[in-house]
Amino acid sequence: MAKDKSPRRVRAETPKGFRDYFGADVTERKVMLDAIAEVYHRYGFDPLETSAVETVEALGKFLPDVDRPNEGVFGWQDEDGDWLALRYDLTAPLARVAAQFRNDLPSPYRRYAMGPVWRNEKPGPGRFRQFYQCDADTVGAPSVAADAEICAMLSDALEAVGIERGDYIVRVNNRKVLNGVMEVAGVLDPADPDRHAAERGIVLRAIDKLDRLGPDGVRALLGKGRLDASGDFTAGAGLGDTQAEVVMAFMDARRDSGAATVARLRELVGPSRIGAEGVDELETIAQLLDQMGYGADRLVIDPSVVRGLGYYTGPVFEAELTFEILDEKGRPRQFGSVSGGGRYDDLVKRFTGQAVPATGVSIGVDRLLAALRAKGRAGGTSTGPVVVTVMDRDRMADYLGMVADLRAAGIRAEVYLGNPKNFGNQLKYADKRQSPVAVIQGSDEAARGVVQIKDLVLGAQIAANATVEEWKSQPAQFEAPRGELVARVREILARNGGL
Amino acid sequence: MAKDKSPRRVRAETPKGFRDYFGADVTERKVMLDAIAEVYHRYGFDPLETSAVETVEALGKFLPDVDRPNEGVFGWQDEDGDWLALRYDLTAPLARVAAQFRNDLPSPYRRYAMGPVWRNEKPGPGRFRQFYQCDADTVGAPSVAADAEICAMLSDALEAVGIERGDYIVRVNNRKVLNGVMEVAGVLDPADPDRHAAERGIVLRAIDKLDRLGPDGVRALLGKGRLDASGDFTAGAGLGDTQAEVVMAFMDARRDSGAATVARLRELVGPSRIGAEGVDELETIAQLLDQMGYGADRLVIDPSVVRGLGYYTGPVFEAELTFEILDEKGRPRQFGSVSGGGRYDDLVKRFTGQAVPATGVSIGVDRLLAALRAKGRAGGTSTGPVVVTVMDRDRMADYLGMVADLRAAGIRAEVYLGNPKNFGNQLKYADKRQSPVAVIQGSDEAARGVVQIKDLVLGAQIAANATVEEWKSQPAQFEAPRGELVARVREILARNGGL
Repeated sequence: MAKDKSPRRVRAETPKGFRDYFGADVTERKVMLDAIAEVYHRYGFDPLETSAVETVEALGKFLPDVDRPNEGVFGWQDEDGDWLALRYDLTAPLARVAAQFRNDLPSPYRRYAMGPVWRNEKPGPGRFRQFYQCDADTVGAPSVAADAEICAMLSDALEAVGIERGDYIVRVNNRKVLNGVMEVAGVLDPADPDRHAAERGIVLRAIDKLDRLGPDGVRALLGKGRLDASGDFTAGAGLGDTQAEVVMAFMDARRDSGAATVARLRELVGPSRIGAEGVDELETIAQLLDQMGYGADRLVIDPSVVRGLGYYTGPVFEAELTFEILDEKGRPRQFGSVSGGGRYDDLVKRFTGQAVPATGVSIGVDRLLAALRAKGRAGGTSTGPVVVTVMDRDRMADYLGMVADLRAAGIRAEVYLGNPKNFGNQLKYADKRQSPVAVIQGSDEAARGVVQIKDLVLGAQIAANATVEEWKSQPAQFEAPRGELVARVREILARNGGL
Repeated sequence: MAKDKSPRRVRAETPKGFRDYFGADVTERKVMLDAIAEVYHRYGFDPLETSAVETVEALGKFLPDVDRPNEGVFGWQDEDGDWLALRYDLTAPLARVAAQFRNDLPSPYRRYAMGPVWRNEKPGPGRFRQFYQCDADTVGAPSVAADAEICAMLSDALEAVGIERGDYIVRVNNRKVLNGVMEVAGVLDPADPDRHAAERGIVLRAIDKLDRLGPDGVRALLGKGRLDASGDFTAGAGLGDTQAEVVMAFMDARRDSGAATVARLRELVGPSRIGAEGVDELETIAQLLDQMGYGADRLVIDPSVVRGLGYYTGPVFEAELTFEILDEKGRPRQFGSVSGGGRYDDLVKRFTGQAVPATGVSIGVDRLLAALRAKGRAGGTSTGPVVVTVMDRDRMADYLGMVADLRAAGIRAEVYLGNPKNFGNQLKYADKRQSPVAVIQGSDEAARGVVQIKDLVLGAQIAANATVEEWKSQPAQFEAPRGELVARVREILARNGGL
């Protein structure tokens, strides 16, 4: 390969915050998503794939980080002056589809969607600007039976990909209960719903940060505000002590049984009509799930779940993995949330002017896959190909014939297509490809109609452990007639447990 | 659902040139791509998924429509002033990856990629701004054995998705032969390769349009230019009659056998060194493929194949479906090209300054899927779910229990989640969902511990054809104990050939 003297070279870099997925990254994710899709399909959900590009108008501004309402998406202006952008989630496009095709779609419409979404956020370690989501939603179903179904399906999906019962919990809450608590705390006036909206936003985000900030941090945010370790000040909701106490009690309302939690919540929402409605819905969901066989080992009512997004209107839920993994510093910590969702009855209304009830869930694909890897449960890792080496450049047709025979027998196989001059490079290549078998045929072997077959797995074991006797009794390389190539390779692959 | 008085409604529309894929659109494509991926995997190719976003610099400007060099992509400027854009194909990102990860990837690197690409072109009927591609490429393999392998794999992939042998042909040519012809025609000077570049571009595009313009149209473009039916004039390459004759003879050089075509091409390229090299390569590819068992029923040398893209440097190939379909006006026409590719040895060099040989193929996913549909071979169409209707809103838990039992038995099932008041709507819903079975349980049945099971497929047949006797002997609706629900539904599904 000759050096080029051209001075201007293009930088070979992914844009900041973007990444590539290689080999097993792709297949492991595919195996996981296929398993989830199978569950969604069984529940009657149909696939939908919307385009990556939407009008900015259709997407709306629902990203949790309300401090930057105009940012968060990758957008541009088209030739007609319309602003277009890459979708930031799969829910906004669904709302657009539900409105655009409302006369054609079945109602209720159960749909699932899997694909990348894009966020124009500051990239950081493990934080990318393109990532996968995997959603299931039911549009047009007003009853909480739809929410219960989504929770049951989420539970089934987690088990289908390999998260065992006991290693996860689906936690359910209801925004209406929170609204009831807000009413009691004096930051929600049913007669004037827009009043105190900013305070409620702060309360919502404070509760959502309980895990990270602890009770004292949340309490500070409910009151005058919070100064963090770096000296940054976050404004508080300005609640008095008694008001804040109601919210704190709400977060702490989980009891040993669902019935006890429901009773405690009833106390807290007191006379609030919306609060009582929320508690009733929670009770119904818990009963429905229980009768479907989804008990407390899989689903619990947990008032600390609120979800950051502003558009939820009723039940909200979250799936948390409860097993421990080691963090970057080697300390054990719970894996945490891999999925969340809830009811959002007003999203479609933006388009149609008519309220359309909707509920759904989104699985964080990368996080769930990371969990499966941590548990050693990620599927789809493939064996490397059999590598047919090239001893004699002029007999390429012979080598291609060998791989053609192997492939026709369903065996993954390659001929070495680099410069064949240095044979060591060919074996290094086979090693890098994690090949189980190498096939070698020089002119001498060709004249005799035979091939050398090298068991690379056994060879590596022998190199690591074997005595000379073992090596002699089970040689990692042997000669075989060309006509027996496929059969002999198949024997080795069967012995190594892969084909 | 109450009307909202808000005056500003958001338009529920996909941006111009974009579309949504529903249900079978998604599953049929998935089944096809899975089958192709299985072939690619068997050939030793590894999956790669690059991000949708690249720097404009990395993408380069290789779109065929050279009249609009600054257009063709969707781009925007990031916060650092860098221009980013959505990828317009899967080859440019591969070149970037091959350069960026050259020290980590095996060499040669065989990779496949499947995913959407975006083109900022004028949308039209059947012409979208986002579409799927499915590529396989080998980077770092200088020998034409790599090109032969790609051709064989393309052939296997077409058969794997359901295109039968005889219904397709892979046509192979070589850009070097064309360059030899250009040399003979006087528009390529080996001593000054940049000279006549514009003329060669016109010749290339003219040949690529042979199908559409016919020999006379191409000849006009080779000479003074062409006036089309609408009165638009396209400038020609300015070749004299003798020069044009050489090019016309090249397009017409296909003979009955590969050997005869090769002999004819040797005459045409005459003394051109690059031309002779191209003919040698063509001959080698044909021999290799023949020895791998891919004969003239699957692969032919066809000098009329040139491919529109500017970056090809050696072998080029195209898969054409040879069966007829009816066009919009009901006239039979050949289905045409569904895939193309070739060798592009200079793309990676843009990044590294070093020449890196590469070759690959791209399958037009939407076109191939359309062909499978035309042949009735598209897979993955799913049956609708069993629909459990809701007679008694208070017993939702019972109905959810029925679908839970059905799903646990692997049967796709749904409870009706819309407003249950109008029972007719529930059956209309089941019809829209193409449900094979509906389950009904009113309070009377519940008290007796039974369910009504309605075979909707049989019901439709009876409604269409049956006599009263047939209807009596095989009723489409029957009663069964609740405990036998799963077993009886399974019987119906088995009878209808689906589960």
